[in-house]
Amino acid sequence: MSTSRLEAFSDGVLAVAITLLVLDIKVPSVGGHDDLGRELARNWPHYAAYVTSFLTIGIIWINHHAMIGRLLQADHMILFLNLLLLLSIALLPFATSLMAAYLKQSHGQNLAAAIYSGTFLLMAVLFSILNRHILLRKPQLLTSELSEQHRRQILARSITGLAPYAIATALAAVSAYATLAICAALAVFYALPVASGGDQRGE
Amino acid sequence: MSTSRLEAFSDGVLAVAITLLVLDIKVPSVGGHDDLGRELARNWPHYAAYVTSFLTIGIIWINHHAMIGRLLQADHMILFLNLLLLLSIALLPFATSLMAAYLKQSHGQNLAAAIYSGTFLLMAVLFSILNRHILLRKPQLLTSELSEQHRRQILARSITGLAPYAIATALAAVSAYATLAICAALAVFYALPVASGGDQRGE
Amino acid sequence: MSTSRLEAFSDGVLAVAITLLVLDIKVPSVGGHDDLGRELARNWPHYAAYVTSFLTIGIIWINHHAMIGRLLQADHMILFLNLLLLLSIALLPFATSLMAAYLKQSHGQNLAAAIYSGTFLLMAVLFSILNRHILLRKPQLLTSELSEQHRRQILARSITGLAPYAIATALAAVSAYATLAICAALAVFYALPVASGGDQRGE
Amino acid sequence: MSTSRLEAFSDGVLAVAITLLVLDIKVPSVGGHDDLGRELARNWPHYAAYVTSFLTIGIIWINHHAMIGRLLQADHMILFLNLLLLLSIALLPFATSLMAAYLKQSHGQNLAAAIYSGTFLLMAVLFSILNRHILLRKPQLLTSELSEQHRRQILARSITGLAPYAIATALAAVSAYATLAICAALAVFYALPVASGGDQRGE
Repeated sequence: MSTSRLEAFSDGVLAVAITLLVLDIKVPSVGGHDDLGRELARNWPHYAAYVTSFLTIGIIWINHHAMIGRLLQADHMILFLNLLLLLSIALLPFATSLMAAYLKQSHGQNLAAAIYSGTFLLMAVLFSILNRHILLRKPQLLTSELSEQHRRQILARSITGLAPYAIATALAAVSAYATLAICAALAVFYALPVASGGDQRGE
Repeated sequence: MSTSRLEAFSDGVLAVAITLLVLDIKVPSVGGHDDLGRELARNWPHYAAYVTSFLTIGIIWINHHAMIGRLLQADHMILFLNLLLLLSIALLPFATSLMAAYLKQSHGQNLAAAIYSGTFLLMAVLFSILNRHILLRKPQLLTSELSEQHRRQILARSITGLAPYAIATALAAVSAYATLAICAALAVFYALPVASGGDQRGE
Repeated sequence: MSTSRLEAFSDGVLAVAITLLVLDIKVPSVGGHDDLGRELARNWPHYAAYVTSFLTIGIIWINHHAMIGRLLQADHMILFLNLLLLLSIALLPFATSLMAAYLKQSHGQNLAAAIYSGTFLLMAVLFSILNRHILLRKPQLLTSELSEQHRRQILARSITGLAPYAIATALAAVSAYATLAICAALAVFYALPVASGGDQRGE
Repeated sequence: MSTSRLEAFSDGVLAVAITLLVLDIKVPSVGGHDDLGRELARNWPHYAAYVTSFLTIGIIWINHHAMIGRLLQADHMILFLNLLLLLSIALLPFATSLMAAYLKQSHGQNLAAAIYSGTFLLMAVLFSILNRHILLRKPQLLTSELSEQHRRQILARSITGLAPYAIATALAAVSAYATLAICAALAVFYALPVASGGDQRGE
């Protein structure tokens, strides 16, 4: 299969998932003597989780493009692994809602944070597995010949990117705020052009 | 009509439908002494139905691509049958919600399972009708000449794929769990690269 | 502006609108001694309105493709009229919900039907205005030279297509069921390949 | 990165965001002696905000196309700034809902209007920053050579377009109706072909 329709479908899922995130930001219904400003401010976990998830999907989109751009053709294994990756990304609107809803609650905040960060970790793991299949198992499908050393470098960066999400997920047992802070910091760090020059997470 | 915009529109509908599935996974609202983990675990039918439907739409997308990829041009009948196929696919977020909501209920679980599996069966039937029209009625629209024997083989595989869904739908009268299990097993089986090599369901 | 991104954006809006229609089909919540089958059957206006709106958007997509396919380039007026057309199409999920919710109610059913059919009429009017602009005012933007007679024929068919929707909208004052029946019949008639050969509504 | 997938992803997000706006127009539930017509009429802020936001996203799409159309390639800074622009656009369904829900309320209407207009202002600012980066910092990425004077002219128009949104946002402290009226007038003015000839806002 040519990669153009694979890209079009993946872009579609990513574009819908990233735009559905906004459905979690609800308009507060404010009674007579409540204050809209205070209600909106109280919802800050929803905005923080929105920006974090939005930037993270954006980074995945950039890295996905780079990964697929190296391919001439896709075999069935690539389609299958890509589908699993999309499945994990499409879960993000749920994980983001869960995180935002429980961040400030006394019960459940640790579990919600672990699921939120765990979804990012799952995405990063599936991304690395797909990347590994492409770079090590199917070099003949690549558009340009890359030395094995170069391919292993790209993959090593991809796998190194898993560590911070593993740490953030583990830290959820201690503090949901710490987990969100790490995920947000990672999103900003990877999205910022300075951190990269083509060296974004997952590549 | 050229097939490129037909593919683009179909990809769009499939991408939106597959991503809307997540809207059925609701964030549970947990009271004072309830446990978020237990509430989330109790919702397992939603996750099972989500993964099953997601993989099934993914398989349809792969097979749809193969089917349309054989075409040089689309006539009005192809557009019409494709529209009916998309209509059945776009129903999946509803059928998935229904299945997940009633799987564990004493009333309605058999009907919900029959509708869920029946939607898959409808999709597979419409896929086979469209495939039959392309392969047997309009061979002159194909990109490469295929022998009639080869075309009949592709179609036979497509029609053979209907049987498991018909069985799953019939079994819904006995056990909704059996229906979901069959649909899930089919989704995993067809999605796995081993089962295929281009021989996926519907082709 | 080249027409390819105009087509891509229009396809995107059409694909999202057509797929969002399913959100109106709600999973019924059934109490102890209610029957899921009866509840689902009671919701038939939602299924009828769903199929009608789905097929109608599908027909618009086909005609839209034919209309834009005649264009080499789009001027600003075409972008503006196309945006208004998309605005009316994007309203359909609301109009469809309204129609389905009020069809069986004693109060409001006539108004709901008038708004439903009126949205289709608005879409058809905007389609004709856009088609008129392309065919009569900007023939220099067409890909192939069409005689003025031929262009006027295409346009006449487009305008003739308005009449049934005007009648359906007027009939809403008498019977909401009649309005839905006409809209459904038009959707099936225009979608069926027999009625056409490139002569679909709006062309 | 080539600009084609950047355009495809941006188009996807814009198409989903513009179509999700309709989810804010709710079907009113009318009791025994209420009147559907009166209920629908009472919801006019939702229709006004819908049309305003729809046209504004449409204008952004046109201008975005013109901006990216000048590019041969995208660097990482362009991807990053474009992602921030999409983030602000994807917030519009929320801001539109908020505006429509509070326009007629005694409490909160000024804040809601400020957030609504402020989201437009944010979009326009991010658009100008991205345009500035492309025109002044990366002229070597442009498809055709533009004189520095011409590039500064395009950018000046883009920055001039910020003023009305800044005024509308400031006026929200006085009257939410005035803010909506200005935003609506700007949307119609910029969408109308007369106002432009390629000179739309943001260019």
